[in-house]
Amino acid sequence: MTLSNTLVALAAHPQGMVKESDMTLQTAPVPALQDGQFLVKNEIISLDPAIRGWMNPGTTYIRGIQIGEVIRTFSAGQIIESKHPDFQVGESVWGLLGAQQYALSDGAGIVKADLAKGPLSWHLGVLGMPGMTAYFGLLDKGKPQAGETVLISGAAGIVGTTVGQIAKIKGCRVVGIAGGPDKCRFLTEEMGFDAAIDYKNENVLEGIRYTCPDKVNVFYDNVGGDILDDALSHLAWGARVVLCGSISQYNSTDPHGPRNYMKIVTARGYITGVIVFDYFNRYAEGINDISAWIHAGQMHTREDVYEGLENFPATLLKLYTGQNFGKLLLKV
Amino acid sequence: MTLSNTLVALAAHPQGMVKESDMTLQTAPVPALQDGQFLVKNEIISLDPAIRGWMNPGTTYIRGIQIGEVIRTFSAGQIIESKHPDFQVGESVWGLLGAQQYALSDGAGIVKADLAKGPLSWHLGVLGMPGMTAYFGLLDKGKPQAGETVLISGAAGIVGTTVGQIAKIKGCRVVGIAGGPDKCRFLTEEMGFDAAIDYKNENVLEGIRYTCPDKVNVFYDNVGGDILDDALSHLAWGARVVLCGSISQYNSTDPHGPRNYMKIVTARGYITGVIVFDYFNRYAEGINDISAWIHAGQMHTREDVYEGLENFPATLLKLYTGQNFGKLLLKV
Repeated sequence: MTLSNTLVALAAHPQGMVKESDMTLQTAPVPALQDGQFLVKNEIISLDPAIRGWMNPGTTYIRGIQIGEVIRTFSAGQIIESKHPDFQVGESVWGLLGAQQYALSDGAGIVKADLAKGPLSWHLGVLGMPGMTAYFGLLDKGKPQAGETVLISGAAGIVGTTVGQIAKIKGCRVVGIAGGPDKCRFLTEEMGFDAAIDYKNENVLEGIRYTCPDKVNVFYDNVGGDILDDALSHLAWGARVVLCGSISQYNSTDPHGPRNYMKIVTARGYITGVIVFDYFNRYAEGINDISAWIHAGQMHTREDVYEGLENFPATLLKLYTGQNFGKLLLKV
Repeated sequence: MTLSNTLVALAAHPQGMVKESDMTLQTAPVPALQDGQFLVKNEIISLDPAIRGWMNPGTTYIRGIQIGEVIRTFSAGQIIESKHPDFQVGESVWGLLGAQQYALSDGAGIVKADLAKGPLSWHLGVLGMPGMTAYFGLLDKGKPQAGETVLISGAAGIVGTTVGQIAKIKGCRVVGIAGGPDKCRFLTEEMGFDAAIDYKNENVLEGIRYTCPDKVNVFYDNVGGDILDDALSHLAWGARVVLCGSISQYNSTDPHGPRNYMKIVTARGYITGVIVFDYFNRYAEGINDISAWIHAGQMHTREDVYEGLENFPATLLKLYTGQNFGKLLLKV
């Protein structure tokens, strides 16, 4: 019996802001399983800012998606067929399984989702790629010390809220930058942030000065652009700037760099970044810690769940217009 | 007897490119010596790119020069009067003694020039601030390893040539970026660089790709602007970008940041900087090493010497138009 696969394919490399028409829904037969492969039935798909970068033709830290190829996403589901000795039918897994119903895998980059740590959807959020990005980016690259100030841009997203909550657990003062009063209230009232700056309604530089009287020891940047310049202007001595993303620039045809980049010299700090794939062999550390913090009530997560592969393009666009609130997911 | 001091004072904070009229020659009596002070008769003045930044009104890593105040420079001379227990008449010293004939000092930041290590002018060059900037910026921040590739912008200046020669001594492949065929030939034929890229007549990015086949492990940047973007595009895994200066931007009213800044993330590297003043207590290490390398014939230096305080403004401008060749100095 040949299964039919429904998938979202790249129709065109986006020019500037990604459009729904850059993607197209297709069906294709699922190829027969080879030795060393297994077949996953995807249950839930993660919509992450990085997808926009992957849609460009060139190779950065990962090969760009080709036209006609399934959109690369982190997805989670159950193994329904296996010719791989290490992966058994019935196991739940997550990885780069794509925006599709069924995915063949040889196991590379695939993580088994331990449902005792949390429901499957968490394995695409706090316990998955965004959670690991937050955990290792903050702790391994930002190296926050108790009493220091951690500033986070794109703070209301899944990476931002996870970074902020971990920083609080580590004894830091935590300030988030987000768009709109609802997201800012969410940060201070539900996520335990010490302060939040509403970039849509406040002067960000003044906000940083006001909320970070001892300046910024760690800046965790998901946004880039003017907000990065503002943060660079108010760094403490020895500051660490961790570049995680630059969502303000992903859809720009004329991206601009940080004018204030020389401030890192004055601050005697450094600018570095985090690529989550580098920590693949250490995910268990992050998953164990975050799962324990959630079960102890020290950490919270919020999801924003949509449904249906046909809604993938419209749902993806919510990421870049600042409309989503919590981890953006799509049920297959 | 009251001495009369001739000095170059700031007439106006420059707007964009510094002009001769932003400075003015003045005379003033030398104040009487207080206890704990000494008087230096300056013999030679150093013209360094950093001066342009100091002419801006704000404070960065150092207070901006005020209008009417003497232009801050590193200068070297002899002590002709002293009420300071640690500084004796006849000793040669260098430090931030300014663009003037006579300078009073309390000894803060003043270094005694050991003429056995080299002539007084060297203490404003390879054995002075530029040499220390090169030495500590490269070794302490760039951490070059034998076999690695070190790329240097503004390579024909005193900092650039010193960085390049130290990197060669440490076993690195060294490539310099400079303006014009004469400077490029100087780098490869006299300074021992493996290759040079002429930014005035070559495509810099292509030049970097061609001359750095194993990519760039350490980029030592004196220039900023487009050249920084080009270097960021060709970094090796784990690259270190050491920001020393951004001379291409100092006179710009609309400075631009590196568009390619996220490349540091892909490269798993970091961007940091060097402020020479931080190494004040370690200058002896650098002076001893560099002096020994010069006396062993492993390192060379070139000077570009002018004369007369009245020529200070015109001489300073040579720095920002790429006209000077070797360490720019002015005899008083």
